Amino acid sequence: MKALLISAIVASSVMGASLLDEAKTAGLKPIPANAKAVEKLTSNPKNPTTVAKAELGKMLYFEPRLSKSGLISCNTCHNLALGGSDGMSAAIGHKWTANPHHLSSPTVYNAVFYSQQFWDGRSPHLEDQAQGPIQAGPEMAAPKEFVEGVVNSIPSYVNLFKKAYGKDVKINFAKVADTIAVYERTLVTPSRYDDFLNGKKNALSKAEQKGLKTFIDKGCATCHNNIALGGTMQAFGAVAPYKHMNVGDFKGDKNGMVRVPTLRNVTETAPYFHNGQIATLSEAIKEMGRIQLGVDINDKETAEIETFLKALEGKKPTVIYPMLPASTAKTPKVDVVNN
Amino acid sequence: MKALLISAIVASSVMGASLLDEAKTAGLKPIPANAKAVEKLTSNPKNPTTVAKAELGKMLYFEPRLSKSGLISCNTCHNLALGGSDGMSAAIGHKWTANPHHLSSPTVYNAVFYSQQFWDGRSPHLEDQAQGPIQAGPEMAAPKEFVEGVVNSIPSYVNLFKKAYGKDVKINFAKVADTIAVYERTLVTPSRYDDFLNGKKNALSKAEQKGLKTFIDKGCATCHNNIALGGTMQAFGAVAPYKHMNVGDFKGDKNGMVRVPTLRNVTETAPYFHNGQIATLSEAIKEMGRIQLGVDINDKETAEIETFLKALEGKKPTVIYPMLPASTAKTPKVDVVNN
Repeated sequence: MKALLISAIVASSVMGASLLDEAKTAGLKPIPANAKAVEKLTSNPKNPTTVAKAELGKMLYFEPRLSKSGLISCNTCHNLALGGSDGMSAAIGHKWTANPHHLSSPTVYNAVFYSQQFWDGRSPHLEDQAQGPIQAGPEMAAPKEFVEGVVNSIPSYVNLFKKAYGKDVKINFAKVADTIAVYERTLVTPSRYDDFLNGKKNALSKAEQKGLKTFIDKGCATCHNNIALGGTMQAFGAVAPYKHMNVGDFKGDKNGMVRVPTLRNVTETAPYFHNGQIATLSEAIKEMGRIQLGVDINDKETAEIETFLKALEGKKPTVIYPMLPASTAKTPKVDVVNN
Repeated sequence: MKALLISAIVASSVMGASLLDEAKTAGLKPIPANAKAVEKLTSNPKNPTTVAKAELGKMLYFEPRLSKSGLISCNTCHNLALGGSDGMSAAIGHKWTANPHHLSSPTVYNAVFYSQQFWDGRSPHLEDQAQGPIQAGPEMAAPKEFVEGVVNSIPSYVNLFKKAYGKDVKINFAKVADTIAVYERTLVTPSRYDDFLNGKKNALSKAEQKGLKTFIDKGCATCHNNIALGGTMQAFGAVAPYKHMNVGDFKGDKNGMVRVPTLRNVTETAPYFHNGQIATLSEAIKEMGRIQLGVDINDKETAEIETFLKALEGKKPTVIYPMLPASTAKTPKVDVVNN
């Protein structure tokens, strides 16, 4: 009995070790275990992360007055309570407008690990990305000058910018976006999967390890790799056309490429695919096999992969909900009905 | 010099003491200094406050899936980051609908101290009140059965209800509202004003004490009294008609009565009055004098009262933003464009 137990442990251990090698070979990388290493990896050298910037960025992330209506914040569509997204098939913004290309809101969690931002990958980093939705007509619909007017009209914000960037800071739209980006860079969610990749072999159950192996063997890691298990541009419908594309839906950039979404916390971010037309993970797994890899992923393999994907649920940073400073007489007025 | 200083302190002390008496006579009451006393005062004997209920209630308060669209939570209009309100003149809800009576969102902070809920006072307590906006067509627009379907479809919620109410709990719409109400009962914001009323004479500056005296002398405490400095029903436009009433605006209940809003955190909850037509505190103070008291409140007195009102800014409870459990295959589906 004891011999059996020991041999089982040894077998598991050996399987764990080789699977780890396989995962590394497939390009899968962990969030570092060390907090300092995470900060180094996620900080922008041109806009380094500091506590003062991240705290101010958090306020701005939750600040509905950065939208033209005064009602929509970054967190409305990238809700930190809902896996960093909104559960919608298409983002809903200013005046209840659905995204005109029927694009869903990607999760903000771990977006720092993407090589490109937005579904069409047009943005190189979060500092640039954050400028987009604030201004976009169907999202927050706020002109740059409006945003600058709001922030500069509120003395507490002016002081917090000075604290974060020095007393001579010019508080303009880019600085607002930069600051939000610093906060977003802190939104990473390490999981047991990372513990496994960092060498803790029993961090994943046998079923989860089996799922990881199937995930690699089927070819999923061809696109879902690196730290985010996603984040690069790939041809969408590379092997067969996606069936759930409607007229007007986003069909990829000029080369038909779509940014691969992260699989971290994927259990929390249904519905799936850039146009949110896939309701369940099992359906998403099978459809990906069909249109991207040209392979049939059977029910058993799908269940194995799904078991692995559940292990990507990460630990979210604790968010103390910010108390935002009051508007002043100089704050641009909002006409709630007409805006 | 020393004698002068001592006599100044004595004078201030005497003024403080007599002002305290005046305040008590005027019906002003503090939030108790003792946390246990606060809990006893705010807890509903039929639905006593517990940590398990309050924590679950917080999740539900921030839960957009209680709305028909999946986009609007209690916190959308009663935003804890914005003084418990939304900064709008009229609440904006489902499909970007403005409140049909052009009613603004009252702050949720200290609402537990109101005698009546809603601007028309039709609801006796928060447990009853919380049922309203969730169902109201221009607000969250969710039928009871929809809400019950959402909560019962998510195992984490079912478990949290069991933890809060016992394993035989029937999770229905009323229970959801009861639980949200328990959380709202914890949203009280003690201030230096309370310290003053609780006997700490120097908690308010001389200017603030002067403002409090003017507030009482002018008659403001006739309606703005008790713990909330508001919360009862009073005839609106008792002495002269309110000028900023538009066609279709709420004109009071069948007797022309409007629920008096709290003045706690009033610096954070512009625009003012039930239809949000008053932009600044000074304008609000003067207009109240004119239409409710039939007195002219001059610029000096207005400034004094405003100084006092600023001292009503309270300490908000620390809110750890909740992480909400994922939907399941059984969770009622949301059609983002058509709902």
